[in-house]
Amino acid sequence: MDEKVIVAVDAMGGDHAPYEIIKGALEAAQENEKIIVKLVGQEEVVKKHLEDFTYREDQVQVVDAREIIETEEPPVNAIRKKKDSSLVVAMNMVKNKEADALVSAGSSGAILVGGQVIVGRIKGIERPPLAPLIPTSKGYSLLVDCGANVDARPSHLVQFARMGSIYMENIVGVKNPRVAIVNIGAEEEKGNALVKETFPLLKACTDINFIGSIEAREVPNGYADVIVSEAFVGNVILKLYEGVGGMLLSQVKKSLMSSLRTKIGALLIKPALKKTLKQFQADEYGGAPLLGLNGLVVKTHGSAKAVEVKNSVLQCLTFKEQKINEKIKENLLMERS
Amino acid sequence: MDEKVIVAVDAMGGDHAPYEIIKGALEAAQENEKIIVKLVGQEEVVKKHLEDFTYREDQVQVVDAREIIETEEPPVNAIRKKKDSSLVVAMNMVKNKEADALVSAGSSGAILVGGQVIVGRIKGIERPPLAPLIPTSKGYSLLVDCGANVDARPSHLVQFARMGSIYMENIVGVKNPRVAIVNIGAEEEKGNALVKETFPLLKACTDINFIGSIEAREVPNGYADVIVSEAFVGNVILKLYEGVGGMLLSQVKKSLMSSLRTKIGALLIKPALKKTLKQFQADEYGGAPLLGLNGLVVKTHGSAKAVEVKNSVLQCLTFKEQKINEKIKENLLMERS
Repeated sequence: MDEKVIVAVDAMGGDHAPYEIIKGALEAAQENEKIIVKLVGQEEVVKKHLEDFTYREDQVQVVDAREIIETEEPPVNAIRKKKDSSLVVAMNMVKNKEADALVSAGSSGAILVGGQVIVGRIKGIERPPLAPLIPTSKGYSLLVDCGANVDARPSHLVQFARMGSIYMENIVGVKNPRVAIVNIGAEEEKGNALVKETFPLLKACTDINFIGSIEAREVPNGYADVIVSEAFVGNVILKLYEGVGGMLLSQVKKSLMSSLRTKIGALLIKPALKKTLKQFQADEYGGAPLLGLNGLVVKTHGSAKAVEVKNSVLQCLTFKEQKINEKIKENLLMERS
Repeated sequence: MDEKVIVAVDAMGGDHAPYEIIKGALEAAQENEKIIVKLVGQEEVVKKHLEDFTYREDQVQVVDAREIIETEEPPVNAIRKKKDSSLVVAMNMVKNKEADALVSAGSSGAILVGGQVIVGRIKGIERPPLAPLIPTSKGYSLLVDCGANVDARPSHLVQFARMGSIYMENIVGVKNPRVAIVNIGAEEEKGNALVKETFPLLKACTDINFIGSIEAREVPNGYADVIVSEAFVGNVILKLYEGVGGMLLSQVKKSLMSSLRTKIGALLIKPALKKTLKQFQADEYGGAPLLGLNGLVVKTHGSAKAVEVKNSVLQCLTFKEQKINEKIKENLLMERS
């Protein structure tokens, strides 16, 4: 018998909640019958939206939670005080094994804090990093950590590299993924204190394919599969990636609309250009997992629509089927032996 | 009588040295008669190239230096041992007031080390930051520090903000420039230890227009005129900027060449697109100054061609005419009073 995967979905978090969240969750359930989604949120609101869709009732449940955590709320406070918020209720379901995973498009800070405080770390994992896939000219790279643990220590970064490797190999299917550390030069002696301390530790790891430093310039070229970084720098990379891309494309679009001549040209190139740009869109590759937790927490963009939510829920299925957490635990044992 | 500005040009540093370097230096001299360029390098090589050009002899001198610093050499060693290299000789000319400024496309590391060790800091300046202009959708922003001082302290960042403000106001002509610190969230309580410590210090500065945090996503939108950052993060921003831009444009170009239809479209949009992309090209806005030195050191791209070298030399003229270093010194006095 195929094992079911239960995904708690924070129906109230995100710019397009609850409609797009519910829609995406239902689409995931429809796409794979092993998935059971538990929609967490104000029951009457969720049920009202459910009336718009058809779905298999044994795949969908509604779990009532009365409160909503807003994006602007200080995360630690929100997690502590709003015990009946959709996010905290969903987190507790993962903690209590009533769900295998949780998907939320809500407050990043609250998701990071809740992941550590409520769901909890795998024993031996020092810090759970946030690890999104970022598009490159060759496919995808995993950026770990992109915002969960600022001012990290070398030992944290080594664990990020190991967990990232396991994720890329088993979820994305990259054999022997190349691991690199973000640096400001290619040579081993370059870098800040953290990178200089971490470099030899990564070099000494026999269980990862460490290829050395990666300069930010090389990130978009897919030079490495797993890109290890302290969270502040990782967050800057992720945000700037989106920012530069968005700005350049809007400038290109503006120049395409500047005259009749360019408008005709634009019509001719549109389909090809659209196809090219599609591969750089965030919604195609789901959400970012918090690695190293007892269970799985996936953070999707605050602006996520149904397709991204769907892909995030499907990602939870792969995560469980590939036994990622079991592999992380085995790796921890190996590390100590 | 108009004052002359003497610029020592490292003729042997850079991917396209010496030809493009010499060409650019001569073009700057031709564009403004106040400029005197001293071409530093192997005399016979420089003189051979000079035969290809016409120029006013009172504006151009050759200074012999036998050695060349290679990009791969450990910077501290190179500066210490290669006393007769074009870079070290040029640096000593600035130190000894035989030149007002120095332009080099050579080894970044050697330029940064030599700037501090040979040219020396203005008394009171703790760390001289490297401060390039980066293109945005609204014009340019100054990124300070983009690679000179990793693991900086809060007091360094405050000086970066002040010097950056003076530079933007007087060189680029931005009135009351908006200063922001790179952060991973907009709120004051966000950030790593360094940013959290620096934020209130910047807020307390009465001589700058501090507008708070800037997320990397907002950098390309020209949200701030002076972007303050620790050097590791600044370097990541600069390099990723170039990397994402380059990758996206090459993908767009590839899609434009994918069929006959798109090729015709590409022909129609080419002039407009070219104009748009030109504003994002590095060579248009010269080099990056090391701020806070006794004299001026300008680092241009290793790949700089004549136009970038020319603009870098012209930048030295503006720097002197606007009395930037005098203004930095006044600001330091004000800070203490």
